[in-house]
Amino acid sequence: MKPRILTCQLPKHTGQDVRLAGWVHRIRDLGGVCFLILRDRGGLAQVVLEADSDWPDLGCESVVRIDGTVRTEERARGGCEVRAKRVELLAAAETPPLEVFRTLTASGHRLDTILNNRAVSLRIPEVLDIFRVQAEILRTFRAYLTSQSFTEIVTPKLVLGGAEGGSAVFEVSYFDRVAYLAQSPQFYKQMMVGSGLERVFEVGHAYRAEKSDTAWHLTEFASLDFEMGFIESEQDVMRMHTGLIAAIFAGVRENCGQILKQRQIELPDVQDIPQVSFVDAKQILAREFGKVEGLHGDLDRESERLIGQWAQRQLGSDLVYVTGYAMSKRPVYTMPREDDPSVSQSFDLLYRGLEITTGSQRIHNYEQLVGALRAAGLEPDDYADYLLAFKHGMPPHGGMGMGLERLTAMILGLSNVKAACLFPRDRNRLTP
Amino acid sequence: MKPRILTCQLPKHTGQDVRLAGWVHRIRDLGGVCFLILRDRGGLAQVVLEADSDWPDLGCESVVRIDGTVRTEERARGGCEVRAKRVELLAAAETPPLEVFRTLTASGHRLDTILNNRAVSLRIPEVLDIFRVQAEILRTFRAYLTSQSFTEIVTPKLVLGGAEGGSAVFEVSYFDRVAYLAQSPQFYKQMMVGSGLERVFEVGHAYRAEKSDTAWHLTEFASLDFEMGFIESEQDVMRMHTGLIAAIFAGVRENCGQILKQRQIELPDVQDIPQVSFVDAKQILAREFGKVEGLHGDLDRESERLIGQWAQRQLGSDLVYVTGYAMSKRPVYTMPREDDPSVSQSFDLLYRGLEITTGSQRIHNYEQLVGALRAAGLEPDDYADYLLAFKHGMPPHGGMGMGLERLTAMILGLSNVKAACLFPRDRNRLTP
Repeated sequence: MKPRILTCQLPKHTGQDVRLAGWVHRIRDLGGVCFLILRDRGGLAQVVLEADSDWPDLGCESVVRIDGTVRTEERARGGCEVRAKRVELLAAAETPPLEVFRTLTASGHRLDTILNNRAVSLRIPEVLDIFRVQAEILRTFRAYLTSQSFTEIVTPKLVLGGAEGGSAVFEVSYFDRVAYLAQSPQFYKQMMVGSGLERVFEVGHAYRAEKSDTAWHLTEFASLDFEMGFIESEQDVMRMHTGLIAAIFAGVRENCGQILKQRQIELPDVQDIPQVSFVDAKQILAREFGKVEGLHGDLDRESERLIGQWAQRQLGSDLVYVTGYAMSKRPVYTMPREDDPSVSQSFDLLYRGLEITTGSQRIHNYEQLVGALRAAGLEPDDYADYLLAFKHGMPPHGGMGMGLERLTAMILGLSNVKAACLFPRDRNRLTP
Repeated sequence: MKPRILTCQLPKHTGQDVRLAGWVHRIRDLGGVCFLILRDRGGLAQVVLEADSDWPDLGCESVVRIDGTVRTEERARGGCEVRAKRVELLAAAETPPLEVFRTLTASGHRLDTILNNRAVSLRIPEVLDIFRVQAEILRTFRAYLTSQSFTEIVTPKLVLGGAEGGSAVFEVSYFDRVAYLAQSPQFYKQMMVGSGLERVFEVGHAYRAEKSDTAWHLTEFASLDFEMGFIESEQDVMRMHTGLIAAIFAGVRENCGQILKQRQIELPDVQDIPQVSFVDAKQILAREFGKVEGLHGDLDRESERLIGQWAQRQLGSDLVYVTGYAMSKRPVYTMPREDDPSVSQSFDLLYRGLEITTGSQRIHNYEQLVGALRAAGLEPDDYADYLLAFKHGMPPHGGMGMGLERLTAMILGLSNVKAACLFPRDRNRLTP
């Protein structure tokens, strides 16, 4: 028999005998004839089973192999269907806990139901599509940075101390000691700039033991990070980041166009991203929205939303950088401005009013970094391995980090980041 | 001033003014003139500082920016050198704990010294090169599988149970509960075959709380995994895997050729990989090497080495698959042979006598899997989320896993896997 083809390849095989394999997406028995919708990784196709043959017992989600002939049928998806000659049951299926053939809107399932039954809910094409987009984000993230002579690195997630002196870390029993799960690859990627690779990126898990369980919290998430040396200021990082976001959006538009279209999503064609300083943002918030509260050195969630609105309306841009947050609101390794050390050389990127990225130039001078750690009440000796890179020559550098699930959710307009994580973890969820 | 160029670009700029930046790899003061070797991510270059100028104080590993003129100099690396006009110190450096300009062989440092001073030892070009090869392995792994219509997935490393019922797991305090660090993505990648993606791969950390601390053990390693549906047998997995290994070796040969040459490493041009069954391997070991011990269902380390020797000598192949290990030595989800259920449909891939991969066809029938769990003394209810995928239609499938650090070490002929991990973790090591 011929090798298996995918449903999306059927139109090229009209009139021919083919072999298909996949899941029974839906089946309708009309007495004289039975219409089966077959689902495989290429899509859906209609298969016709004549009533006078001896077919195996098939229910929704059964896995089957079908040999048959492709024929033109204008009323069918793709303009053709398969008339079955032979149907083999590869795996039987009990009635699924969710109807895979219905859209989420039609079925009205709560996110918890979707997540609790993940192995089946992922089969709903619009659910699985989220992770096709996610894979494309990963691909373009790496491809763009590789094209800019970045090197991929793999750094440990089992660490001896909390990366940034934070308290929300998970403890691990490590033989007779205690280890922690890394909150970010920050220190390691900086060390890798200093290693001589100069430009590095990583895709790896990061952990936050945060008790808050909102639509935007995950305790385990995939962190997309880059760090680059020999910069003049954080503006070099932002330029690289703009190119990166442009590449990711272009990749998703190009390779997931059908998915965006089905969801009526238009991704901006990113050229240049406007900037607004935190000081200016405060004035805009007061002047345009009468908002003066919640602005103690950075923007609260509502301010981000309003600045996003303002950027769309006034600048015609879905994306806007906010720069110059107060040092007091930024991590200890952030570079302060030379002319005003209370202001950081940092930025956030907002997309339609939500923060997707945070980045900055970092302190590269050894004495300055030791002083910054001390001023933050941290003991430099606890950071000896990290400081070693700085003691022996670290170039000016900076970088950024963003969460993969958050970026996926924002691109697809999802209202909960957990919907953009295959198997999310939060305060209450450790399964499936 | 002109933008910075890299040292490897100098030959294209002979006679021109350029800007370089990097680390002082070595500096020799000959009185009238000072020769400085500058190191950047592109390599090394000679810079000449005339004695009559006022240069900053420079020591090894200082970070500098140099403006100067490129001129032909046959005795210098790359056939040219830079006569400095201006040298700016970007970051001072204390005398490094290791001499970065010496080769490892010349300096004779122990691996522990290298690892304890990682932020500096990585600057030794031959050490850093290991991770350039590693990045290329990652790139080609993903590129090949993407070309075969695999989709990248990200699955959790915080799990509620040990993936395969094993005991060597790390415990995590998860709020008021106990979680574990995943030993492998096995169950998740199988569920993702069932999700309809059919073909998935993942690069993610895996954890083994093994007390043994040998040259080939890491407690945290990067696991390269793929899993594919709608296979006929494990032979389909092996065919895909052969293509994958061929692509990785070709990528490293092509893009890291200089590194291989310096180390006098020749990577085989993989076309087809011979197979030997476990039963035949036992006969070969007895006949050719007089070895009959240590063969209770699988090969011990020495047998792998001998079978590797035999494959090189008799088959002219650095790579050999060993198939058909005893079911008793394979994980519970492994597919047994239909004609002899004591034999598994599994394989290992040996490279020069060391195992780099392990894979198999998996059980896809729900009742059979439940039976296998019970027979192994496991409670199917504990695996309900995993079993859900099988209850509702799972195609025949299989896959494989290999450790990134191990593969890197083998390709480069390193004698310790820790040398192929940026920041390795073992029984005793949690830093840097």
